[in-house]
Amino acid sequence: MDLTPLNPPRRILMGPGPSDVDPRVLTAMALPTVGHLDPAFISVMEQVRAMLQAVFGTQNKLTIPMSGTGSAGMEAAMVNLVAPGDRVLVGVNGVFGGRLCAVAERAGGEVVRVEAPWGTALDPDAFRAAAKGRGFKVLALVHAETSTGVLQDLSGFRAVADELGALLLIDAVTSLGGVPVDLDAHGVDAAYSGTQKCLSCPPGLAPLSYSARAVEAVKARTTPPVSWYLDLSLIARYWLGTEESGGAARAYHHTAPINMVYGLHEALRIALSEGLEARFARHRRIAAAFVAGLEAMDLPLPVAPADRLPQLSLVRVPDGVDEKQVRTELLAEHGLEIGGGLGAFAGKAWRIGLMGSACTEDNGRLCLSALRAALGRQGRVVADPLPAFDAAL
Amino acid sequence: MDLTPLNPPRRILMGPGPSDVDPRVLTAMALPTVGHLDPAFISVMEQVRAMLQAVFGTQNKLTIPMSGTGSAGMEAAMVNLVAPGDRVLVGVNGVFGGRLCAVAERAGGEVVRVEAPWGTALDPDAFRAAAKGRGFKVLALVHAETSTGVLQDLSGFRAVADELGALLLIDAVTSLGGVPVDLDAHGVDAAYSGTQKCLSCPPGLAPLSYSARAVEAVKARTTPPVSWYLDLSLIARYWLGTEESGGAARAYHHTAPINMVYGLHEALRIALSEGLEARFARHRRIAAAFVAGLEAMDLPLPVAPADRLPQLSLVRVPDGVDEKQVRTELLAEHGLEIGGGLGAFAGKAWRIGLMGSACTEDNGRLCLSALRAALGRQGRVVADPLPAFDAAL
Repeated sequence: MDLTPLNPPRRILMGPGPSDVDPRVLTAMALPTVGHLDPAFISVMEQVRAMLQAVFGTQNKLTIPMSGTGSAGMEAAMVNLVAPGDRVLVGVNGVFGGRLCAVAERAGGEVVRVEAPWGTALDPDAFRAAAKGRGFKVLALVHAETSTGVLQDLSGFRAVADELGALLLIDAVTSLGGVPVDLDAHGVDAAYSGTQKCLSCPPGLAPLSYSARAVEAVKARTTPPVSWYLDLSLIARYWLGTEESGGAARAYHHTAPINMVYGLHEALRIALSEGLEARFARHRRIAAAFVAGLEAMDLPLPVAPADRLPQLSLVRVPDGVDEKQVRTELLAEHGLEIGGGLGAFAGKAWRIGLMGSACTEDNGRLCLSALRAALGRQGRVVADPLPAFDAAL
Repeated sequence: MDLTPLNPPRRILMGPGPSDVDPRVLTAMALPTVGHLDPAFISVMEQVRAMLQAVFGTQNKLTIPMSGTGSAGMEAAMVNLVAPGDRVLVGVNGVFGGRLCAVAERAGGEVVRVEAPWGTALDPDAFRAAAKGRGFKVLALVHAETSTGVLQDLSGFRAVADELGALLLIDAVTSLGGVPVDLDAHGVDAAYSGTQKCLSCPPGLAPLSYSARAVEAVKARTTPPVSWYLDLSLIARYWLGTEESGGAARAYHHTAPINMVYGLHEALRIALSEGLEARFARHRRIAAAFVAGLEAMDLPLPVAPADRLPQLSLVRVPDGVDEKQVRTELLAEHGLEIGGGLGAFAGKAWRIGLMGSACTEDNGRLCLSALRAALGRQGRVVADPLPAFDAAL
């Protein structure tokens, strides 16, 4: 039995997540554990809820972290709304749209897919056409496709959802804290995220928000959700207090992951102390410079400029370049992690993140220089990207 | 917006969990986050798997932490085995037996309950009688009932499961690391636990183990489990590597909660460095002294001596005593958390844990003395428990 102590290396995390974690967040996670019903923890929960409302751009009361990673947030958001036989209209232009379909189907939903090519955004009219005049329980789509780096414009989807009588559900895993999410402005009913992207907290929690309309839909169910662990009616009795006590008493459901909630608390404090607008501007500014550097090296970016996520760039691997070798070298020589492609882009693209704490000028320069050197070692000589990076800042 | 830093109080956690966390575990959780596919993390995963096998007493290859709390472990263990229409025989002598029924029913299982009074153990013959000669897919019961402090003898249940053609599933949330679990010796097919009990790691992960027979049952399914997030066939491709690569390549499913896994790694190192036998003996020795102290104060223990968990004592609240007031005073004056009753024992009992790092002589003495003082303030004068405690050590 190997009982040597942990000694993880120091990395610079510029993949599609997890992103670099601020040492303040790590320190918060190491604070003493208290009980899940301790009055001191209840006040932490209330602060987390208020800060999550701010980053989600919502007044939704039911805005809480689920006790699992982003995919648990997806499952919670979907299965509390979908009962067997419910029709669900899902936009699919990447891995996570496909995952939404799988989750809805396992809950007994009848899924209609609205497909768009990977690397492009979805159009509201395509949802109208796919609906063919039928009503739907849920219209779901991905705000920030982590598999392609596409930012989805949410304008116009509330109108489509209203026409279909549907609740509007979005995946905000990679968007939250990096670009505006503005749930209330867009009329979103259900949204979920992860902590390990632009919030720069370790993975392990899934912020989720349900509108009053979504909560009513849950109350109107005649069968319980397939998941007990992610049952929001039961979890709300812990996070919001029980209705019979007017919110004063908290009912045990499962033991909340106390120290992960500490970490999220600190990550949210950091984001809100920076200021959301300043944080979004930082992501836009450094991403623009990073893209200028990539273009200076003639590396193709498959996503159209208007649809690009600042915090995650999809970069096509040039012909003849061993993409895995490049990633291996970046990790070995610089402790720098970038991501490979997923699904349609597996083996064909890199995914390079500039998320949260990792979104710095120095990281942008380091990654561009390291990429240039790794490409050079494979015989592909490209221009110095740094002048373009610096000029675009 | 309240953006003051976290400042959680230092507690002594002697409720039904979470238990006190060793500072070494908290320090491990604050180590730098790496990627979920980083070679450095893969080796951490392999060590965690080996150490979990040791504490579970199993050679099961599929022995991994699920990315959620103990209840996620319960859901994962159950829903991967149960398809709609499958018969499930469940022992119910407390809250967690009842929860097993709810989880099985939501997965479409036809549940037959085998009831026993709260505070007593279950008898294998009662399962035979309830089965009425029918076959079952799963026979499920709770090894350590956190709601009552009952330790379930597992002897004889493999034989019953074999008679019914059933897989044997146990809840080991409160037992793992505090008493022997010995999955292989008892022929258990599926077990799950939590990190926040006798392993003394913060809540957030659910160790789970599936036997080869349970894995075969999952492979034989014709419909997928209701949960995508907890789908063990998909998760095994990450934790064990993909079958097509002979285990060499890891497939992304969801982003593992990296820093929680660090914490579990350290907690397991601490448990195995102490030695499991020594750890079990420590729990037995201090619990025996603690019970002697409770008896010296004439506090009734509803569970029969042979069925008591060393790590969790159920204590009946004497008539006329305000149990909530006692808990509030212990927390305010000593930072000492003990638990209230659940379900049939709500308002009628305390649950006092001596789990993992919290299982010390000093904590035993402190809790007994504090209880005596709090009872005295409510006019209930009892004998000094410490001489009995010290004599029994």
